[in-house]
Amino acid sequence: MIKSALLTAMLMAGLSATAAGISSPSGDFKLDVSADSDGVPRYSLSYKGSPVVSNCALGLRADEADFSRGFRLTGIDTLTSDTTWQPVWGEYSDIRDHYRELAAHFEADAPARKMTVRFRLFDDGLGFRYELPRQDNANYLTLRDEATEFNFGGDHTVFCIPGDYDTDEYLFSETRISGIPEAMAKYRGRHTESQQTEGNATIQTPTLLKSDDGRYISVHEAALTGYPALLLDVDTVTRAMSAHLTPDRLGVRAYLQLPFNTPWRTMIVSDDARDILASQMILNLNEPCKIEDTSWIKPMKFVGVWWEMFTGNVKTWAYSDDFRAKPGVTDYSALPSNGRHPANTANVKKYIDFAAAHGIEGVLVEGWNEGWEDWASYRKNRQFLFDKPYPDFDVDSLRDYAAAKGVQLIMHHETAANAADYERQLDRAFTFMKDNGYNAVKTGYVGAIIPRSEHHSSQWMVDHVNYVAERAADYKIMIDSHEAPRPTGLCRTWPNWLAQESARGGEFESFGGNPPSHTCILPFTRLKGGPMDYTPGLFETRLSYYGEGKDSQAGSTLARQLALYLTMPSPLQMACDLPENYERFADAFKFIEDVPVDWADSRYLEAEPGRYITVARRDKNSADWYVGAITDENARKATVDLSFLPAGEKYEATIYADGKDADWKDNPQSYSISTRKVDSKTKLSVPLAAGGGMAIRLKKM
Amino acid sequence: MIKSALLTAMLMAGLSATAAGISSPSGDFKLDVSADSDGVPRYSLSYKGSPVVSNCALGLRADEADFSRGFRLTGIDTLTSDTTWQPVWGEYSDIRDHYRELAAHFEADAPARKMTVRFRLFDDGLGFRYELPRQDNANYLTLRDEATEFNFGGDHTVFCIPGDYDTDEYLFSETRISGIPEAMAKYRGRHTESQQTEGNATIQTPTLLKSDDGRYISVHEAALTGYPALLLDVDTVTRAMSAHLTPDRLGVRAYLQLPFNTPWRTMIVSDDARDILASQMILNLNEPCKIEDTSWIKPMKFVGVWWEMFTGNVKTWAYSDDFRAKPGVTDYSALPSNGRHPANTANVKKYIDFAAAHGIEGVLVEGWNEGWEDWASYRKNRQFLFDKPYPDFDVDSLRDYAAAKGVQLIMHHETAANAADYERQLDRAFTFMKDNGYNAVKTGYVGAIIPRSEHHSSQWMVDHVNYVAERAADYKIMIDSHEAPRPTGLCRTWPNWLAQESARGGEFESFGGNPPSHTCILPFTRLKGGPMDYTPGLFETRLSYYGEGKDSQAGSTLARQLALYLTMPSPLQMACDLPENYERFADAFKFIEDVPVDWADSRYLEAEPGRYITVARRDKNSADWYVGAITDENARKATVDLSFLPAGEKYEATIYADGKDADWKDNPQSYSISTRKVDSKTKLSVPLAAGGGMAIRLKKM
Repeated sequence: MIKSALLTAMLMAGLSATAAGISSPSGDFKLDVSADSDGVPRYSLSYKGSPVVSNCALGLRADEADFSRGFRLTGIDTLTSDTTWQPVWGEYSDIRDHYRELAAHFEADAPARKMTVRFRLFDDGLGFRYELPRQDNANYLTLRDEATEFNFGGDHTVFCIPGDYDTDEYLFSETRISGIPEAMAKYRGRHTESQQTEGNATIQTPTLLKSDDGRYISVHEAALTGYPALLLDVDTVTRAMSAHLTPDRLGVRAYLQLPFNTPWRTMIVSDDARDILASQMILNLNEPCKIEDTSWIKPMKFVGVWWEMFTGNVKTWAYSDDFRAKPGVTDYSALPSNGRHPANTANVKKYIDFAAAHGIEGVLVEGWNEGWEDWASYRKNRQFLFDKPYPDFDVDSLRDYAAAKGVQLIMHHETAANAADYERQLDRAFTFMKDNGYNAVKTGYVGAIIPRSEHHSSQWMVDHVNYVAERAADYKIMIDSHEAPRPTGLCRTWPNWLAQESARGGEFESFGGNPPSHTCILPFTRLKGGPMDYTPGLFETRLSYYGEGKDSQAGSTLARQLALYLTMPSPLQMACDLPENYERFADAFKFIEDVPVDWADSRYLEAEPGRYITVARRDKNSADWYVGAITDENARKATVDLSFLPAGEKYEATIYADGKDADWKDNPQSYSISTRKVDSKTKLSVPLAAGGGMAIRLKKM
Repeated sequence: MIKSALLTAMLMAGLSATAAGISSPSGDFKLDVSADSDGVPRYSLSYKGSPVVSNCALGLRADEADFSRGFRLTGIDTLTSDTTWQPVWGEYSDIRDHYRELAAHFEADAPARKMTVRFRLFDDGLGFRYELPRQDNANYLTLRDEATEFNFGGDHTVFCIPGDYDTDEYLFSETRISGIPEAMAKYRGRHTESQQTEGNATIQTPTLLKSDDGRYISVHEAALTGYPALLLDVDTVTRAMSAHLTPDRLGVRAYLQLPFNTPWRTMIVSDDARDILASQMILNLNEPCKIEDTSWIKPMKFVGVWWEMFTGNVKTWAYSDDFRAKPGVTDYSALPSNGRHPANTANVKKYIDFAAAHGIEGVLVEGWNEGWEDWASYRKNRQFLFDKPYPDFDVDSLRDYAAAKGVQLIMHHETAANAADYERQLDRAFTFMKDNGYNAVKTGYVGAIIPRSEHHSSQWMVDHVNYVAERAADYKIMIDSHEAPRPTGLCRTWPNWLAQESARGGEFESFGGNPPSHTCILPFTRLKGGPMDYTPGLFETRLSYYGEGKDSQAGSTLARQLALYLTMPSPLQMACDLPENYERFADAFKFIEDVPVDWADSRYLEAEPGRYITVARRDKNSADWYVGAITDENARKATVDLSFLPAGEKYEATIYADGKDADWKDNPQSYSISTRKVDSKTKLSVPLAAGGGMAIRLKKM
């Protein structure tokens, strides 16, 4: 570390000591930091000579001390770091972590305060965080506000969802910054205890902006621990956004004990949309893996007793229709089954058989435990028991059956958002899992949070989900968390945290459907924080198929569902549909059987947010490549330049494409499968239907 | 059960069907129940022909439905029950449970509502509760209010403490109902996160009233589960009190799922103050013991590493003075000890030696675990670890040493009021205890509650402490809970819940002192809910003894401290002073060695609230009797009529009396010990000094 080198240089050069700056390794980015005449710390970022954000305030405000004004820039430290690390799983086997760092030290008097803002400037963007060392005066802060600004200047296009303290399961709006209030207004009035849109001019991160001159900016945060999740308040006049931290229900943003470092505030920036997708900056800003032995962490695909409950409101998670049943009180063995409960031993064995026959590693079972009869989330201090199976779910028999077939059962822990009760039971729940052969769990927080002082994204819940992941690591359990605060790259530190939901996922195909554009936006936004358990693989996209009068339909052709395994990469990837639907389209299902979930390399070939994505990835365990391409409501041709293949090697390409007459709405199940030999000189041009997509397996010959 | 017998009888007698009534078995009490012209359920209670409370409203008000008006009395059930049961421990080996019951069934229309109020009328008072069966409409209630009234009519004298949602560690005020606001006003402004006096005209239960014609009324509740603790709002004009339920911080009193029965509202009533002390009515209103095998529940006396930390602010619970130390993060073995930490192996062994030498069963150790350096209750989501001993506390060595000496170590779990974190760790904490030979734990909730939505006495915390007691029973662990909601007789149901603090205890002798009257009020109020870990046995009552400039002094002579073992009965009874102080007064300490903590029978010989108490009790395990007598600031003679002794049997009485020149303030350590032979014809008259007391052991010859 070159102690205060730049500042010294600046002083020697006769420059003001109130400002400092660095450039990114490539020189494309330039960062300036200063304290203004009111002592407000400020930063500006430019890219290729044009401003990204300008003259943005920095700071924190607490009851005990104001860290947002009165500061002098008293010193800086800079360093350059260039390392490469290997994730346990992911899109790349090696990730380069290359940045220049500027730690700007601010001090203020009366009362004395100290704050460092640490900036890391990468070739794909900027991260910065606040570091509050121990103070002479206040070392506990009741945080009321974070002052961080993102002054974009222009009226950029923005892909955003409402700034909700509890849920992120929204469709994205594509609008101008100035149009955000109008776009968000349609969500007003949806105030329930588990869904709270905060005004019209507040949005969530990750959000993606695009300037009129073709610059893409993805705004989010990294390493969210001990702090609430970030929202953004929007000033439609100045085009500025500013931090809006999720409060608890008593109005406090966070309780901090110093020393404390906030999460990183991040902007991934490029004039090529593919760079946004390829960026690993958020992972780079997280701490290295804290799990010593990671050999038990195994990416996998899974099927599950799940979609049955969505197809027509007939099948239920509940064993009985007696809503008076009380977990731990009622004798469930004496309750009559409602006969519509798929999480029963015989049915689960069918899923195990299917998984074993098709090389699918895991089987998720939802609705296996006591508590589903009476969904009174928030109204009850106790809801679910995590060690009490329903009488028709034979834990012992299924453990042995799954083991004999080489299939992993995946546990489900729906908490009804009663995080306090889940923590109460956690050790027993995990012990029960390990005793019965479960190594992975899907957690759920549907409803309004208990403790009732909290929101899904407030500090306490952030601590909770992190605690669950850490505690799971102690038990060698993998986690897939639903309805948890949106991810911020913590899966680097805790790679047993394979995936999260934390966005509007595939389940909504039964609640009105996700338009094709939705999955063309998620990789630019939600996925920057980490993998999503989106649950792709829906072959029967029309709910009317089940004859229940539901008219919901997925915004996707069948071939496009295969492509999602590439465009929505996750080390825990569901094949969400019913086994019988896969048997109807066994040739297409072959792709799902084949496609890996862990990658050695990834190449984003085409990308435009909300429009299309084409990506190629190399299997971590072979020389095979896979390609996926999706489009929005507009048909297009995906161009796949195979120059990434090793020169001189021959590959057999199996192409799963939309049929000529395919259309997401009118003819989603039209597809064609063809094979041809290719090499690095081949350029493929594959037509994608409206709402369509295609997938290619490139098998080395 | 005689279905609707009385109502039928009334109808046959031409009485209005809108009223019903019963008398107590003795006939002294008469209860009337009705619905008034607005359909408000009402009750009145008289005793020996005079009203106790008159025309009192009943009911509950929830967001979803109003259960306080519009009702018709549609039927009643009555029964008489007379049973006797044996508590695992207590003041009596047999407890008679004799009552007449009236279940008054109310119904209302538009929307349809049903409510039963179940009254049990004993010979020592009344208990009643609300029973809400499943309704046609609302089966989840967000409870906003309870309408229960106690219209006393007269301007009674009342012994009360402020209606605080979080703490009950107050001295009692003795005032008139009309003077309550003035008496409570002195506590105003003490609003912290852990102490919230709710206005001037709200008091806590248990409270004791005395009418000018000499009637005593102790108001409290029984079987507080799934509901918040009861406070009372006072109308100084009408002399009426009404229920004020502790809310959570979001303003909700309780979340109820029907069917639900509230706790019992209780009035113990007599014109003889001794009957108030003798009453077991609150225990009778609790459910029978739910623990099948209670053989592991062992009442005991204990000494402890505790008072050392109160004597001069020198000794500390904390191992180190480094307030930056973080449990689970800091390497404590590398921290310098502050050298003032008594919970160290060598010192604990001294306590074990002392206990073994004097037949004291237990040794409590406070400050044994990581987390005491930085007391930032409420500011931190994590504070204490319950399986991480300090480096100077050798768990293994102490386990073996205590076992070899036949002494029980008692664990301490201070939670800093972070109940959520305690639940998170509970299974591990209890497992750690059992692995290391601990069968009892003192819990603590000092500070403001986390979950931050809660108060110490709100519904969630009531559920919490009950959960801890039940979970402890699973582990065969005995509980002594401090800063928990005041007890309501649940120790009958969970007899492993030996004691609670839940009042201003002996620790305050180092914070200004408890006046002698304090322990003359507690048995009429706080103790009606269950035993108190008051920590008697303070022989060195002047803190100035320790030369630290503290001028606090206990409001008690030394002999009076012995009497407290009788007047403040508890199955878990501390000898709170330092071993060296007991060695200074070894002859007096002999009484503490001898006195039992579990009783076959009890006789209250003299009593007047706030003035004096004289009680005799028979050891459960021998024919010996023990007598204790205390007075307030006024000297008096205790008259002990030994007619309760079996006729013809001779006893040796050892009398521990105040010295002739004893005085709580000026000469507290003056005492005399004498012996004489007595029998059932003996009447003793023992002078008690100002703030004095006396204790007698009656050993059968």
